[in-house]
Amino acid sequence: MTKFLVSAEEMEPIALGGAFLGTGGGGDPHIGKLMAQAAIARHGPVRVIDAEEVDDDALCVPVCMMGAPTVMVEKLPRGDEAREALHQLETFLGKKADALICIEAGGLNSTIPFAVAAATGLPLIDGDGMGRAFPELQMVSFTMHGISATPMVIADEKGNSSVINAISNQWTERLARAQTVQMGGAALVALYPMDGAQMKKGLLRNTLSLIREIGETIAAERKLNRNPAEALLSRLGGRRLFSARVIDIERRTTGGFARGKALLKGMDGDQGRHFTVEFQNEFLIARDSEGRALATTPDLICALDADGGLPITTEQLRYGLAVSFIGLPCDRQWRSQAGLDLVGPGYFGYEQRFVPVESPGETA
Amino acid sequence: MTKFLVSAEEMEPIALGGAFLGTGGGGDPHIGKLMAQAAIARHGPVRVIDAEEVDDDALCVPVCMMGAPTVMVEKLPRGDEAREALHQLETFLGKKADALICIEAGGLNSTIPFAVAAATGLPLIDGDGMGRAFPELQMVSFTMHGISATPMVIADEKGNSSVINAISNQWTERLARAQTVQMGGAALVALYPMDGAQMKKGLLRNTLSLIREIGETIAAERKLNRNPAEALLSRLGGRRLFSARVIDIERRTTGGFARGKALLKGMDGDQGRHFTVEFQNEFLIARDSEGRALATTPDLICALDADGGLPITTEQLRYGLAVSFIGLPCDRQWRSQAGLDLVGPGYFGYEQRFVPVESPGETA
Repeated sequence: MTKFLVSAEEMEPIALGGAFLGTGGGGDPHIGKLMAQAAIARHGPVRVIDAEEVDDDALCVPVCMMGAPTVMVEKLPRGDEAREALHQLETFLGKKADALICIEAGGLNSTIPFAVAAATGLPLIDGDGMGRAFPELQMVSFTMHGISATPMVIADEKGNSSVINAISNQWTERLARAQTVQMGGAALVALYPMDGAQMKKGLLRNTLSLIREIGETIAAERKLNRNPAEALLSRLGGRRLFSARVIDIERRTTGGFARGKALLKGMDGDQGRHFTVEFQNEFLIARDSEGRALATTPDLICALDADGGLPITTEQLRYGLAVSFIGLPCDRQWRSQAGLDLVGPGYFGYEQRFVPVESPGETA
Repeated sequence: MTKFLVSAEEMEPIALGGAFLGTGGGGDPHIGKLMAQAAIARHGPVRVIDAEEVDDDALCVPVCMMGAPTVMVEKLPRGDEAREALHQLETFLGKKADALICIEAGGLNSTIPFAVAAATGLPLIDGDGMGRAFPELQMVSFTMHGISATPMVIADEKGNSSVINAISNQWTERLARAQTVQMGGAALVALYPMDGAQMKKGLLRNTLSLIREIGETIAAERKLNRNPAEALLSRLGGRRLFSARVIDIERRTTGGFARGKALLKGMDGDQGRHFTVEFQNEFLIARDSEGRALATTPDLICALDADGGLPITTEQLRYGLAVSFIGLPCDRQWRSQAGLDLVGPGYFGYEQRFVPVESPGETA
């Protein structure tokens, strides 16, 4: 049974909500939105279904982009690489997929699966593996539930592809990342093939409904010339972190990450204070000038343009920009030791311990 | 019908001949010899068969190591990775292999296929794809005959593997090389699956017989305390280039190659002259001190220790070592324009044109 139908027009709030839950990374969902809209115009709307509706032995497959989202703006996908990756995975498994999954509910990968769902006629399950965006492929709830990322298919726009079989999801990341680089920095993949029973254990539920609602909220508030921050907080819980203007930003690309740190000067109620935000693709740690952590990964640090109210990515940070930062608690699975080992501050190389966004204040 | 049988003992001349035809690269066949001897001791001798005996629809598969041969001395293969790669390729193709092929007739890859042949009971076809050693996987006669390197399986000792499908053999090289690096610098592969009819078109014939004969000649001459250079020249044709002592050597590892240049001072009949030898894994260009090319890739530049008579690899070159250099004409396929495009001096970044070893003397 269909939970909701997504038309070309309804991709707008989904892309907007995906940009917000991308926590500054995951890529701008714009290209994925255009791909989805073209596919929906041609094949009809996408059916989003509830996880509980899926049979335990149904084959469920996440499809997504891997690599630097910034690359895809210049190296446009041909459009059918993700379908080709899915098709090759089906051939390898000798079984047809019954439903598709979004690997992440933030950024580019919250829109690309809609394009594949429209083109194949397969339903998309309401949920994802992150509840936000993260940069590496093992950083999903599925890993914590013992679901293997492989067999995985990676395909590029030229016609090259590989079927990877690896001994761990971390090894899958290494082997797939190296090929992504050779393929020009971005590739389309189908991975974590799982049955319905596994999916019901591992999936973070209802995140597609959530990003649609977030997108609708942002759009409605912007129409009223209001910054959406307050409305989002009252809907999502979480905490206003600060509003501030960027006064310095340093960036470096190391180890395949876009790393950096922004220094901000408080405005509105935060006048006279300073803040820093550290990022590696996504925003990972927000601090005040005394070094107290206000929010840390895996909790979500989301940014809105303080003037226009639109979500801000780390690439868009620039001198003089006024930003409202909001902290949201992550899915509670990420706060377990296994979750923090996968995506906590330590994995990203910070000495900072995880401090829940609802009880901040610990210094580094 | 078996052309000849290879026992554990007969792996000795094969390894020796493989080291000679490795033209300084391709890796020391020692590890592969030990693997083959262990497999033969357990499963019995290896049958080498003539290409003409193979049915046109038989599945023929080269198996080999990919990566830096120097790595395999420290990161010993588990022993069954190549068999695992072959097995996965058979599964992917839905067809069992009927015969194995050596991808190169020089270096490590002239011995590893004997280990796989012994363990699987499959015959090895008398021939190879290079007639020597080359560093990249598209550098085989099969490429010139339009035979695709993919589907190709790459496997490591930990249990990771991939099935690659690429749009060209050059793309296969790129994608497989990137994974080899991630896998720790060396991996085992099964590639260029071809039918008997394709094999008969593409294979360079009788190179396994040749390396065995070269190895036997070297061993026999060494027993008589004679340098094997003269006996090899009278058997193989080609030309004595010079005998000289290394007086300087520069090495650098760039672009995944062990590049370098040796400066040598003539001895015996070459006293008073100087020479240079440039290498990238293999010896690629030998010149006299006036800059005249004496031999150039794809012709073979083979080196023997002037004292002990054993083949010398580029890694073994060191100050003070006395070396006899021999130039041999390559298979005539390599001298076509397509062959020179694949493996001529230009591909390796040299401005030098190819000059046949039998009519040397052109300056750079």
